[in-house]
Amino acid sequence: MVLHQMLRWSVWIFRASPGWWRTTYTFGASVGQQRWPSFAWVMSSPLAFRSSYSTVPHIPSVMLTSERYSVQRLPFSMVSEEDLASFECIIPGRVITDPEELEVANVDWLRSVRGCSKVLLKPRTTEEVSCILRHCHQRNLAVNPQGGNTGLVGGSVPVFDEIILSTALMNQVISFHDVSGILVCQAGCVLEELNHYVQDRGFIMPLDLGAKGSCHIGGNVATNAGGVRFLRYGSLRGTVLGLEVVLADGTVLDCLTSLRKDNTGYDLKQLFIGSEGTLGVITAVSILCPPRPKAVNVAFLGCPGFAEVLQVFSTCKGMLGEILSAFEFMDAECMQLVGQHLHLTRPVRESPFYVLVETSGSSADHDMEKLDGFLEQALGSGLVTDGTVGTDQSKVQALWALRERITEALSHDGYVFKYDVSIPVERFYDLVTDLRTRLGPRVKHVVGYGHLGDGNLHLNVTAEAFSASLLAALEPYVYTWTAAQQGSVSAEHGLGFKKKDVLGYSKTPAAVQLMWQLKALLDPRGLLNPYKTLPAHL
Amino acid sequence: MVLHQMLRWSVWIFRASPGWWRTTYTFGASVGQQRWPSFAWVMSSPLAFRSSYSTVPHIPSVMLTSERYSVQRLPFSMVSEEDLASFECIIPGRVITDPEELEVANVDWLRSVRGCSKVLLKPRTTEEVSCILRHCHQRNLAVNPQGGNTGLVGGSVPVFDEIILSTALMNQVISFHDVSGILVCQAGCVLEELNHYVQDRGFIMPLDLGAKGSCHIGGNVATNAGGVRFLRYGSLRGTVLGLEVVLADGTVLDCLTSLRKDNTGYDLKQLFIGSEGTLGVITAVSILCPPRPKAVNVAFLGCPGFAEVLQVFSTCKGMLGEILSAFEFMDAECMQLVGQHLHLTRPVRESPFYVLVETSGSSADHDMEKLDGFLEQALGSGLVTDGTVGTDQSKVQALWALRERITEALSHDGYVFKYDVSIPVERFYDLVTDLRTRLGPRVKHVVGYGHLGDGNLHLNVTAEAFSASLLAALEPYVYTWTAAQQGSVSAEHGLGFKKKDVLGYSKTPAAVQLMWQLKALLDPRGLLNPYKTLPAHL
Repeated sequence: MVLHQMLRWSVWIFRASPGWWRTTYTFGASVGQQRWPSFAWVMSSPLAFRSSYSTVPHIPSVMLTSERYSVQRLPFSMVSEEDLASFECIIPGRVITDPEELEVANVDWLRSVRGCSKVLLKPRTTEEVSCILRHCHQRNLAVNPQGGNTGLVGGSVPVFDEIILSTALMNQVISFHDVSGILVCQAGCVLEELNHYVQDRGFIMPLDLGAKGSCHIGGNVATNAGGVRFLRYGSLRGTVLGLEVVLADGTVLDCLTSLRKDNTGYDLKQLFIGSEGTLGVITAVSILCPPRPKAVNVAFLGCPGFAEVLQVFSTCKGMLGEILSAFEFMDAECMQLVGQHLHLTRPVRESPFYVLVETSGSSADHDMEKLDGFLEQALGSGLVTDGTVGTDQSKVQALWALRERITEALSHDGYVFKYDVSIPVERFYDLVTDLRTRLGPRVKHVVGYGHLGDGNLHLNVTAEAFSASLLAALEPYVYTWTAAQQGSVSAEHGLGFKKKDVLGYSKTPAAVQLMWQLKALLDPRGLLNPYKTLPAHL
Repeated sequence: MVLHQMLRWSVWIFRASPGWWRTTYTFGASVGQQRWPSFAWVMSSPLAFRSSYSTVPHIPSVMLTSERYSVQRLPFSMVSEEDLASFECIIPGRVITDPEELEVANVDWLRSVRGCSKVLLKPRTTEEVSCILRHCHQRNLAVNPQGGNTGLVGGSVPVFDEIILSTALMNQVISFHDVSGILVCQAGCVLEELNHYVQDRGFIMPLDLGAKGSCHIGGNVATNAGGVRFLRYGSLRGTVLGLEVVLADGTVLDCLTSLRKDNTGYDLKQLFIGSEGTLGVITAVSILCPPRPKAVNVAFLGCPGFAEVLQVFSTCKGMLGEILSAFEFMDAECMQLVGQHLHLTRPVRESPFYVLVETSGSSADHDMEKLDGFLEQALGSGLVTDGTVGTDQSKVQALWALRERITEALSHDGYVFKYDVSIPVERFYDLVTDLRTRLGPRVKHVVGYGHLGDGNLHLNVTAEAFSASLLAALEPYVYTWTAAQQGSVSAEHGLGFKKKDVLGYSKTPAAVQLMWQLKALLDPRGLLNPYKTLPAHL
């Protein structure tokens, strides 16, 4: 029995017209192509909604980070003409000082922070990165490593005038082993392009996230990116097999093994996973790709309450077992925003909550049988009040767009206060309802969505404009609330510049002290991505 | 169609008599109960073959490590009567100086290395560990952290007179979350006991290995243990969510979070996973347990050649997909040894190679259908010449015993030279055949087996007795051969004392230097598990 042939479900399946996904955007004139490499494709294909961040319609100028925040420039050297000449010798023709190109690299994707770097370097090889860092080390020049610049915490752009070291031209696949699925590539390969590459060879990348059309694998590793495949394929700490890293003094650290198991000495690559470019610059990655599933199904379901969402999750884990590959949730306000701002139509009856369940498996028949069983159970027991299932690629991606474009919808709603926390699932939604009560009509929306299967809540608050009093009502409230649940104040986004001072809510003083000791060991002059990740004071 | 009902297979299925697993052992008189906690159970139950290391019949005395190896004692203090009195204040009644009990803790399971420690400490709490290490730090006393003492590279026993700090009494479960499957427990919990604990609650431990009846979870994490579930559930670097560690100076580092995602600062726990107790003493572990599979099947197959073994692996991955949970292989000589020394009967026709394929899934019918399809394909194409399938627990475990008891069979065959390497699967068996040619009749057996699915070969050479000339024929040959394939000279066993000097075959000088810098940062006096993991000289 195939679910989408079931009479009782068919009413609600894809009620929207065939063209309902094809919304139209106007983009600001100043958007550089470099920022959104899949730009044209995003415009033309509904399949691209998961493939690239698109942008917001009106792009106001962004205040300099050094003006908005209380931050002092550290006594690094300033880039001189002699430095530029040295860089030109190392990477001829790839020393960028053009203001327009620099503007794109100085501002983050959210347009919330802005540096004033005067130079962008585009090495192609590890040796070039090594020569650049050796020079910077000798000259006491600070460096901001930059991948696809899709981070959400201001970690990927300079705070002051740090040299921007881009991995954009380090985009070569080095090797792929079509039995083991082990991919070795340069750090600047775009995640989506890697996924296409390995898909053609019967595998998929072990991670997937909304920014995949722009983000670089090196940046993914440097930020320990999570995303929607985390539930199934786990952390990059398990799937990344090797790294090549250039240290602050230019030393090349070659840990680029392609072995599933290697217990020879300390696992140095772990130092660089998730350290946001503050301990070294990742130049190449070896990563284990899982086999491409033969069947992928997505069910989009409406739930009457959050207690039911949790029960659906338990039922799902029990009945779908090894084929469960994602369990995402969003609340009614999220759905309202994607409808209002992106004109996406709700594919199921209105509900207080929605969940997206994805299965990935090796047998379409078995998977559908398992999914049918789960859905019958969930519907029969009242845990789910309505649902629709997508089995072909376009419908799967259309359903995913409802979840993945929430970030974009929020950016159309006004100023967004963003939080990304890990909390125990039983308290998962209480933070959202608490905040609604606390903030009242001062805000437009308080929404909750995210990777429920991983205990990862994306909490977003929108308002007409930035307001210091609103910020004061949110912080440290959100952080203390999270800390009281032994949660993490940054589940997957990292700390970057904007969250570095809240590290202490999730880590003990002894742990923070050891982090500073590691920083001092690996980058004694503090040249790599300064003002990021670690709080200014112990 | 259920495979074990297939006519063409039925002839070969469990031809042995019902009692064929029940072999008899005689144990040496000096075996302490502490070493083999599941001892009685091993004796009485065939199910226990995967549950505990058993032992060898005749136990000769073991030469002191300091006499067999060229190693100099470092200038640590000697334990004084005052030290013993101080320890007695910290852990009254748990300061062990009884020679018999010390003998057990001074010698490794393989009975290949032996320390001469005069004191064994058995703390129950993290605070006690902290007080002990603070005292040792002040007094410049070296410490050997010890879990179940089941390691294979001499990492778990003292080299000289280091104080043995046992986790044996730190065996309490701290919490278990029955929705997420997250277990938090003290470091001294025995792996098998934890597995029983979580199984009763619908989960399994993400790792399983032959020593599970004795090994401690803290030791598993400290050595980054691999084992037979690695293929399915991945590395401990992904499944361990948090650690509590006591540093060399007694500082308690609390990173014992129970969150699937936490990107706040550097992931300090990774420093301690796989560092063999040289950077800190793990006192508690938070670990993610996967749901208990509803169906487990094991197929034991004969293959005509190693090329076919590799093709079976590819076919298996493609057709079994997400339910494949183990792919192990052994050669004909392994089977001969388990027959000769342990009286286990070969359950299939004699073949040059055998593979063990395990499936774990949420639907017995679906899994069997997938397995049947795979077996038909493998048999029909001649990749497999014979096979048998176990679906109930006792047969599954009996088939596993053939693979897991190889180590034990080898120990009956004479002196064993053990290697544990990661090499690309296409060259996987060449090292075994190369060595047979190289060594000729000087050795009894050269055997290859292991976790083929992980690229991890266990290569063992048996001889009548230890011989320096034989060792010279083996080393560095095995290491240079492995390094030439960009392999790892220690895939899962770690380096401990016996392999520490071969680190350079798998890691660059820059990497080794950084390892030493980390050691100097975390344990500047070098008190924790000295003479282990890192080579004496850069």
